[in-house]
Amino acid sequence: MTDNTSDDVSRAPSLTLLGLGDMGTALARGWLAAGYSVTVWNRTPGRARALVAAGARPAESAAAAVATNSLVVTCLLDDASVGAVLEGVDLTGRDLVDVTTGTPAEARQRGAWAAGRGARFLSGGIMAVPPMAGIPEAGGYVLYSGSAELFETHRAALAVPFAARFVGSDAGHAALQDVALLSAMYGMFAGVTHAFALVRGEREIPLKEFAPLLSGWLTAMSASIEQTAEQLQSGDYGSGVVSTMAMQAAGIGTFVGTAHEQGVSPQLLTPYFDLMKRLVDDGRGAESAAGMVDLLAPGDGR
Amino acid sequence: MTDNTSDDVSRAPSLTLLGLGDMGTALARGWLAAGYSVTVWNRTPGRARALVAAGARPAESAAAAVATNSLVVTCLLDDASVGAVLEGVDLTGRDLVDVTTGTPAEARQRGAWAAGRGARFLSGGIMAVPPMAGIPEAGGYVLYSGSAELFETHRAALAVPFAARFVGSDAGHAALQDVALLSAMYGMFAGVTHAFALVRGEREIPLKEFAPLLSGWLTAMSASIEQTAEQLQSGDYGSGVVSTMAMQAAGIGTFVGTAHEQGVSPQLLTPYFDLMKRLVDDGRGAESAAGMVDLLAPGDGR
Repeated sequence: MTDNTSDDVSRAPSLTLLGLGDMGTALARGWLAAGYSVTVWNRTPGRARALVAAGARPAESAAAAVATNSLVVTCLLDDASVGAVLEGVDLTGRDLVDVTTGTPAEARQRGAWAAGRGARFLSGGIMAVPPMAGIPEAGGYVLYSGSAELFETHRAALAVPFAARFVGSDAGHAALQDVALLSAMYGMFAGVTHAFALVRGEREIPLKEFAPLLSGWLTAMSASIEQTAEQLQSGDYGSGVVSTMAMQAAGIGTFVGTAHEQGVSPQLLTPYFDLMKRLVDDGRGAESAAGMVDLLAPGDGR
Repeated sequence: MTDNTSDDVSRAPSLTLLGLGDMGTALARGWLAAGYSVTVWNRTPGRARALVAAGARPAESAAAAVATNSLVVTCLLDDASVGAVLEGVDLTGRDLVDVTTGTPAEARQRGAWAAGRGARFLSGGIMAVPPMAGIPEAGGYVLYSGSAELFETHRAALAVPFAARFVGSDAGHAALQDVALLSAMYGMFAGVTHAFALVRGEREIPLKEFAPLLSGWLTAMSASIEQTAEQLQSGDYGSGVVSTMAMQAAGIGTFVGTAHEQGVSPQLLTPYFDLMKRLVDDGRGAESAAGMVDLLAPGDGR
């Protein structure tokens, strides 16, 4: 009997999940579909019922849920919720994986807090939306940073709902890269918003024909990102520049003028154009746009 | 002899090019390499010398250059330069293709101006940088709008330096889509600038590893552009929304907080976040980001 029980446990890897919002629910379903034993808890119990029907094991409290498995995943509203939910809960010997959205400093502080309570800690930044869970071809992934040992121990489990990428021992680096990637996405979305605003008043430009032109152009232009990275690393912003800041700044009037002609506010792009002008005013008109990074974060600049 | 001469002319298609800046020079080299007879003129003659050595035919004046060939391409500093260079030049029966950068209204006015002088007119927006000329795999292309007849007549010649796409009879539409695509690109670059500013102070995050993560993520997220186009066309911004404005607005604090932690000014992204908050304040928190287009161009909105 003892042997059988032991076999059952090894055949059904298990973990605890705290937080059953849209993302937590998607994570749980991914693990359940892969045959994991998933103990769940949510502040409002209703969220757990559908999952229990799908095979999840409900816990009566966060403490009980944490006591059930060594791997404990938190997917809550924010970092303050993580602190509140785990307040007074014994974390000794637990492997705490926190995929709650937060800042790098919050992740580092939470990692120190967990270590002080005897737990290993890993912070995760989810680069996906819930419907992508369990569908590898959807391309979602999670950036993890913190305890490399924890990551290695639970690598198989972590890779179930989304692909898992370890990005270093600094617990804040997953959040930092997560926020950086999403910030870049918001910039792209701002540009896309402006582009659609410019053309959608024109009946002769069908948006369904313009859209693939737009996504194709942005994909082609994203090739410049690696070049920018090289320039930032070398500090050489001036060699082999095809479109200098001075040339690009000369075109600002056309961009702002077109927006005004079309009745579109240029507000989403003006801060970028302002930085462009500042670089030219600073005598860096023969350089690339890499210098804008210096203007945004003066402390790191050349 | 007459037959031979005639054969020579048909074997060597010809055109006139006014304006030999970096782009004009690249266009000329593309046509020369393809065996075209290219008559060139530039306000400052020095620019023409290297091209003449490569086989181009110099003209003594803009008027003489225009008189030489029916197809006349202008690639000048701005629309005012086009007017100044062609002032008093006989354009009767000419096919004028203007690839000078300008606004849609400038292109429309230039088209009417050319028609008044007896010329057919096509406006071009070049989606490429000069080094991409004559290299099809580089992916550059030119958007053309205006006279469909002119485009058909000279389709082969126009497709030599870059792929040629006709986008309608409104002479302003090539410029409009050109500016829209480049505006979206600047938005993306603004986001990329912010992302690099966030991570580059961290030595444990090598930029050459972060860069492909960034370009891959942006390419994946550009898939949402076609969905946004569908929503804008249907006017339904609320069905099947995975990441609502309310959910995204709830994350703004993390984005701005991370920027502050890293010593980065959030100035490039704050206008986008402000629009996000306005949509939520307007009771559209359950919708997608498509509504931002309405806020930028109130006249076209729902």
